[in-house]
Amino acid sequence: MSFKFTLLYQDRASRARAGVFSTPHGDIPTPVFAPVGTQATVKAMSPRDLEELGAPLILANTYHLYLRPGAELIAKLGGLHRFMAWNGPILTDSGGFQVFSLQSLRQVDDDGVIFRSHLDGSEHHFTPEKAIRVQELLGADIIMCLDECAPPLDRAYNEEALRRTHLWAERCREAQTRDDQALFGIVQGGVFADLRRESAEFLTTLDFPGYAIGGLSVGETKAQMHEMLEVTTALLPADRPRYLMGVGAPEDLFECVARGVDMFDCVLPTRIARNGAVFTRRGRLNLRNACHADDPNPIEENCTCYTCRTFSRAYLRHLIQAKEILGLHLTTLHNLHFLLELMRQIRQSILEGTFVELKEAFLAEYPGNQNEA
Amino acid sequence: MSFKFTLLYQDRASRARAGVFSTPHGDIPTPVFAPVGTQATVKAMSPRDLEELGAPLILANTYHLYLRPGAELIAKLGGLHRFMAWNGPILTDSGGFQVFSLQSLRQVDDDGVIFRSHLDGSEHHFTPEKAIRVQELLGADIIMCLDECAPPLDRAYNEEALRRTHLWAERCREAQTRDDQALFGIVQGGVFADLRRESAEFLTTLDFPGYAIGGLSVGETKAQMHEMLEVTTALLPADRPRYLMGVGAPEDLFECVARGVDMFDCVLPTRIARNGAVFTRRGRLNLRNACHADDPNPIEENCTCYTCRTFSRAYLRHLIQAKEILGLHLTTLHNLHFLLELMRQIRQSILEGTFVELKEAFLAEYPGNQNEA
Repeated sequence: MSFKFTLLYQDRASRARAGVFSTPHGDIPTPVFAPVGTQATVKAMSPRDLEELGAPLILANTYHLYLRPGAELIAKLGGLHRFMAWNGPILTDSGGFQVFSLQSLRQVDDDGVIFRSHLDGSEHHFTPEKAIRVQELLGADIIMCLDECAPPLDRAYNEEALRRTHLWAERCREAQTRDDQALFGIVQGGVFADLRRESAEFLTTLDFPGYAIGGLSVGETKAQMHEMLEVTTALLPADRPRYLMGVGAPEDLFECVARGVDMFDCVLPTRIARNGAVFTRRGRLNLRNACHADDPNPIEENCTCYTCRTFSRAYLRHLIQAKEILGLHLTTLHNLHFLLELMRQIRQSILEGTFVELKEAFLAEYPGNQNEA
Repeated sequence: MSFKFTLLYQDRASRARAGVFSTPHGDIPTPVFAPVGTQATVKAMSPRDLEELGAPLILANTYHLYLRPGAELIAKLGGLHRFMAWNGPILTDSGGFQVFSLQSLRQVDDDGVIFRSHLDGSEHHFTPEKAIRVQELLGADIIMCLDECAPPLDRAYNEEALRRTHLWAERCREAQTRDDQALFGIVQGGVFADLRRESAEFLTTLDFPGYAIGGLSVGETKAQMHEMLEVTTALLPADRPRYLMGVGAPEDLFECVARGVDMFDCVLPTRIARNGAVFTRRGRLNLRNACHADDPNPIEENCTCYTCRTFSRAYLRHLIQAKEILGLHLTTLHNLHFLLELMRQIRQSILEGTFVELKEAFLAEYPGNQNEA
């Protein structure tokens, strides 16, 4: 099976593009934002909620599912789609990011990485081959090469990590046995333009059906992130989707789409929702604040999500104060709707040639974080 | 406004009856089971979930809502129906049960009761008049008199509590100002048949539109509970609904409907769901058990709820083990569906004259708790 990425429109005033990435579980219109379902569930959402929201793609985390309930178990139960009852496209990461970021790392060499489970301390060994095997057991439509995530500003570390990431990318490409999963290579290189170029050029030679951009939004500035994106997307083939891992604040969607990114994922909308923070066109607001205690208005006027169509800020605040599960559900629903709807508008504006105008109008109202990525 | 209870069918082989209780927010087919929404939300359910489940009535707790977010606030926001976006019938209790059971009690005399908030320790004074005023602010369709709940086996305590409960019932009747809420009297009397008779006879003279039976399922045996129901319902007028407070295990629905009860509420289905326990026709099972780890079957074959139509026991167990919110939602949905569907079958069997056969067939398969109520 070959994965087809159809480029529908390339914006003239920016690098923004609109396309469609076809997968065995359906077409993904791009640019796309993927809600994160770490443990085979997007927190506080059911699959039918995600269908109602029109989520074109969701992400699940290989590291978490490998540890619990186990990839073999999920395979035995028919794979991840059937297990979690989500019949749309799914993307899994390689597990590498969690291994390198959850303080579970014990040892890394060219062969692979040894880490301890955050659940029970048990020791596990991941190689490029193992990362592919686990992802083949899970059965997502889009899977990722094992890569090494380095601190973005450490040049020496990034050089060494990049060498290993490229070595592992070749071995992942080699290890893949299923032809119904699109394996993406991951561009690394920290904040160093020459390393990013080297990475994009090397990975392109392996002819992946898509390319991820990793190691960004991990402590560098927004300006550095933007520069790295510009350097990288300029070298990636136009006929393959580009996936910026772990990014998804509203302002970032605009800035990164403008720099040629097609796919995003981020825990931000679901995580902040569980702390009572919700998106509006004028910025985030926190429903815990006392000013909402008797507010009969919805989170946002004219928002078409179930939460805003049905409930007042006062009721939502009460649910949050009372630690009620429904509060987590309703704020999550709104935040995902906000980002998915925003992405639909972004895509539409690209198709209509008005992306830059939409971007300027949105950012003029939305007080996003403009410094740290 | 008068509240109409239409008795459709009186079973010949038992005291079971089928009827309809009409309220400003819709007709309640009886017998009925009401899910409990303590804090203006049935835990882990949205209003649209409850609509899908066909819940004819839900309960909210005056004690909790009075303390947080406050009855005045809810009134300002349009009342409980609008606040929680539930347009069907709602019942509120008086707050008495929580005051007497949550170790918040400080002082009780004929005037009323002084208690401390379980939230912040603040002191509050409830009188019969205050209990009515708060429930009028909340605006439920069915409201309750303030009563004193005594330990069921303590004769002297029950005599004194009954005297006070009757005094308060008169004052509540007097205090009511809204005519769009059905105020129920509450029969008390512990496990003492003569006290139950005295209570039913006295309250009947006050001509309430419905009668609740309180102080049961609080430590007495099942046999004692059944005897008290028989004594009480024999004396209550046939043309008023009878509401057994706080009861709702599947086996109890059958036994108590058979003894002439029309309305039930209970936290059991939602509470046990959050511990991973789910109802089946062959009894409860706990999804935490390791035997479900790789079970591809639903909780119950042929169950028509979203959970059973969509997910395996293995997935549900994974969600519970991983402490995922979706697990709480899906088990709650199933348990409520189980009880609501069971009650629909019970009602249908009464209308068809086959209630006793259904009861025997169900109880032959269902290993309920037959001892402690």
